[in-house]
Amino acid sequence: MRIGKVIGTVVSTVKDPKIIGNVIRIVELIDPYGKSSNEYEVAADTVGANKDDYVLLCKSSSARMTKLTFDKPIDDAIVAIVDIIELEGKELYNKSEIS
Amino acid sequence: MRIGKVIGTVVSTVKDPKIIGNVIRIVELIDPYGKSSNEYEVAADTVGANKDDYVLLCKSSSARMTKLTFDKPIDDAIVAIVDIIELEGKELYNKSEIS
Amino acid sequence: MRIGKVIGTVVSTVKDPKIIGNVIRIVELIDPYGKSSNEYEVAADTVGANKDDYVLLCKSSSARMTKLTFDKPIDDAIVAIVDIIELEGKELYNKSEIS
Amino acid sequence: MRIGKVIGTVVSTVKDPKIIGNVIRIVELIDPYGKSSNEYEVAADTVGANKDDYVLLCKSSSARMTKLTFDKPIDDAIVAIVDIIELEGKELYNKSEIS
Amino acid sequence: MRIGKVIGTVVSTVKDPKIIGNVIRIVELIDPYGKSSNEYEVAADTVGANKDDYVLLCKSSSARMTKLTFDKPIDDAIVAIVDIIELEGKELYNKSEIS
Repeated sequence: MRIGKVIGTVVSTVKDPKIIGNVIRIVELIDPYGKSSNEYEVAADTVGANKDDYVLLCKSSSARMTKLTFDKPIDDAIVAIVDIIELEGKELYNKSEIS
Repeated sequence: MRIGKVIGTVVSTVKDPKIIGNVIRIVELIDPYGKSSNEYEVAADTVGANKDDYVLLCKSSSARMTKLTFDKPIDDAIVAIVDIIELEGKELYNKSEIS
Repeated sequence: MRIGKVIGTVVSTVKDPKIIGNVIRIVELIDPYGKSSNEYEVAADTVGANKDDYVLLCKSSSARMTKLTFDKPIDDAIVAIVDIIELEGKELYNKSEIS
Repeated sequence: MRIGKVIGTVVSTVKDPKIIGNVIRIVELIDPYGKSSNEYEVAADTVGANKDDYVLLCKSSSARMTKLTFDKPIDDAIVAIVDIIELEGKELYNKSEIS
Repeated sequence: MRIGKVIGTVVSTVKDPKIIGNVIRIVELIDPYGKSSNEYEVAADTVGANKDDYVLLCKSSSARMTKLTFDKPIDDAIVAIVDIIELEGKELYNKSEIS
């Protein structure tokens, strides 16, 4: 998986019928230290992530292993909201301290 | 998924029989801010996208989860036409204002 | 898919029994404008492509969706020979004009 | 597979129900000579790896072929702890000499 | 597939039970001209490749289509030993002339 930060949303009217109802989020990939990458993924949200949340992105066929993405033309899914990133023994990110 | 802009078409006579009838489009990947990447994907169109449309591209096995690509040697599909890109609370792209 | 140009062949005697009989081609990836990338893929040919042909490459599990690659340890297949590349309304490549 | 070094952990409360119980580790990719890449993967641990262990990472659908990841939205798994890396006839890394 | 050169081996004691018995090789990716890439893959050998052999690497789900990798958490497999690389009409590599 990759860590990303939710920064936006994509809205589509004309789309594959299977993805009607899926919330499609724009996520900027970040490294574990919180550094931006200027790389972006567009992913189906399956956990109700909000703007600025750090999330885990799951790709390719594994992205279809959730209830909301099963059997759909979706190759990237938000499968968790990150609470804590611990690195080299230090807590680098804690969602509860930010919000 | 990735966001791209439809810029062209590929025509083939000699091809795998399963992909006869599929429209094959050339799509330039763009970032959510609309910036060109000079990276290109060749994708089967499943939603009737036109030149200059912003679209969502779905890759690998997930690209085969549409009616028009099922079970075919296709690893990239256009699965939605983008209407609105909203980023950091601002509407950066709105198809209806462009056309 | 990606566009590439057939530039060579790989011959192997010791190989997985499933891929005996598959023609394995070396393909240089090109962008839609015909520009070389110095990136190369090694792909099973399923359509009888010749040297210098522009072809479409299909990857990962989708590469196994042809008769000649089904169920085989092949992750990249040539699935079409490109006749025409049309970009921004102009015909940038036409195989019939070259050969 | 890729070789990586375990450097941290991600904790999530809100997540896909299927991944409850999976330990999610942050792994820095390294080359076989032990050189850091500044590239990071977030992977489900299936073998009980500890901080600073060198591990093998397995991606995409293959990441779901373990008991702890089967059928789950997980696209990267730690599937082995590296004991020895032998390169060009020399033993470049030996876990027993380090711990 | 990609062409690589076998340069080493990874030994692991603690690992997923399914991959016990698999020989895990370190392979440096090379371009078809034999140029090193400084990119490395760690792959299960299915054909008995030796040090310095040029091999074909097969990735993702296709890496599981051999007898020795079927259903296992392996995302990269050596599926052939390269005998000859022919490029632009010239034989650039011939294993029998080297050994």
